[in-house]
Amino acid sequence: MSSSSLPAIGVFDSGIGGITVLSVLAKKFPHERFIYLGDTARLPYGSKSPKTIERYTAQNLSFLKMQGVKALIIACNSASAQWSGTDFDDIPVFNVITPGARAAIKATHSKRIGIIGTRATIASKAYNKALQQIDNELQIFTQACPLLVPLCEEGWVDDPVTNLIVYRYLQPLLQQNIDTLILGCTHYPILHTAISRVMGKNIQLIDSGQSVSEDLEAAIVAGKIKASPFSQDLEISIFCTDTGPSFRNFTGDLLRQHNLNFDQFEMADLSEVR
Amino acid sequence: MSSSSLPAIGVFDSGIGGITVLSVLAKKFPHERFIYLGDTARLPYGSKSPKTIERYTAQNLSFLKMQGVKALIIACNSASAQWSGTDFDDIPVFNVITPGARAAIKATHSKRIGIIGTRATIASKAYNKALQQIDNELQIFTQACPLLVPLCEEGWVDDPVTNLIVYRYLQPLLQQNIDTLILGCTHYPILHTAISRVMGKNIQLIDSGQSVSEDLEAAIVAGKIKASPFSQDLEISIFCTDTGPSFRNFTGDLLRQHNLNFDQFEMADLSEVR
Repeated sequence: MSSSSLPAIGVFDSGIGGITVLSVLAKKFPHERFIYLGDTARLPYGSKSPKTIERYTAQNLSFLKMQGVKALIIACNSASAQWSGTDFDDIPVFNVITPGARAAIKATHSKRIGIIGTRATIASKAYNKALQQIDNELQIFTQACPLLVPLCEEGWVDDPVTNLIVYRYLQPLLQQNIDTLILGCTHYPILHTAISRVMGKNIQLIDSGQSVSEDLEAAIVAGKIKASPFSQDLEISIFCTDTGPSFRNFTGDLLRQHNLNFDQFEMADLSEVR
Repeated sequence: MSSSSLPAIGVFDSGIGGITVLSVLAKKFPHERFIYLGDTARLPYGSKSPKTIERYTAQNLSFLKMQGVKALIIACNSASAQWSGTDFDDIPVFNVITPGARAAIKATHSKRIGIIGTRATIASKAYNKALQQIDNELQIFTQACPLLVPLCEEGWVDDPVTNLIVYRYLQPLLQQNIDTLILGCTHYPILHTAISRVMGKNIQLIDSGQSVSEDLEAAIVAGKIKASPFSQDLEISIFCTDTGPSFRNFTGDLLRQHNLNFDQFEMADLSEVR
């Protein structure tokens, strides 16, 4: 059935990273319509100031709202860290930080948790606050890893140079005897193998994107968000603010790794969106 | 004397890289007023599409024009590669590509020239066109180096990891027996030591920023641009579109390395500039 009149679930990230979150959501909710926005004209967010990230986030949420959505997912840690609200013009907003913190607390035994992320995410202390709100006896260790996103985007995923850089970033956290590490950037699951090679098998890696789907499910069960009928097929529309061939290709590749495809790929013009 | 009523020389880059160009200009023209704009809210440009880079460039030139300028310098290779005009609303515009190409041709003996730059600069073939317009018998070899800018911004300048990455990028150019290498990104002079270590002393490195000052001088000599009176002191105003403390610090550090300081540091709001 044609589904484009039914309200969708809007997902945004600064670029391709959020596709890892979209994939998790699309598998968990196979009758929903998803609209994804990658703000590729202004990426990366992780090196920018809180004020600028907040302004971009509001614009992106506005754009998604205009497409007709029933829920909004901020699939970008740097943006989640700057978004203080729980809704946007009455539409429920889900971020990746709260569920990531919850999953880390469920996983830890030693109460020693590490967090890696962009400069903006680490400086915001958003994960620290979310963690300590649940358990204030935790020991938290953080590390900004600005080069990991460019390495993903260069495609150096299974690469000795990447291993070396990952090792340098993670070594100080290893020395703190953490037993749980939050991957506080949606790009980092792409480097899962390199990161787990350094951290070893005794340290649990928490992928926030994985956890946000549980929040969405809870909201549907609670009747806060109406699920689409089972007769509806999965539908994925991708928007981006800049046309790079690499974004289209990388999006397609990432979705195909999860046996998914997009139904629509379009440019988004945010110049009139305030 | 107070100089703020005299027309200035406007310089822009996507971020900090253009400060290397500004330093060269400020030393060569110590009686001028300079206004520098770093579009830090939207950097980097090198991974973005030609259309988006062109739009950002026009906005930046517009902003500088509003500050009262007599000349405009595009101190960003990715932006230079997309700017086809020689002036902007009757204000002369100088780019870094034409003088870079000219300097490379002056330097080469073997007529085998290498070019490194961002993905956008390399894909634009702007250097290739500028070089071949002067001498169509040249052999040109190019290499996009997307990780070099993030490495500069991470501050890993004199670092074994950076040497390894520089080696990997430059090895294919070395094998082509080039005798001249154009550093086609204003960040790359920051990595001069690492690059020359790999290239060896027989390969000349061309810094386009160094060369653009010659074009400006020629325009002053030809009477196209009026020089400021010798009684005027050097004045440097820095604007950026995002407030990161790192941009302010890095700008200060880079200028101090050349015994320069900025007189003003301010936020630029481009949201109303079309």
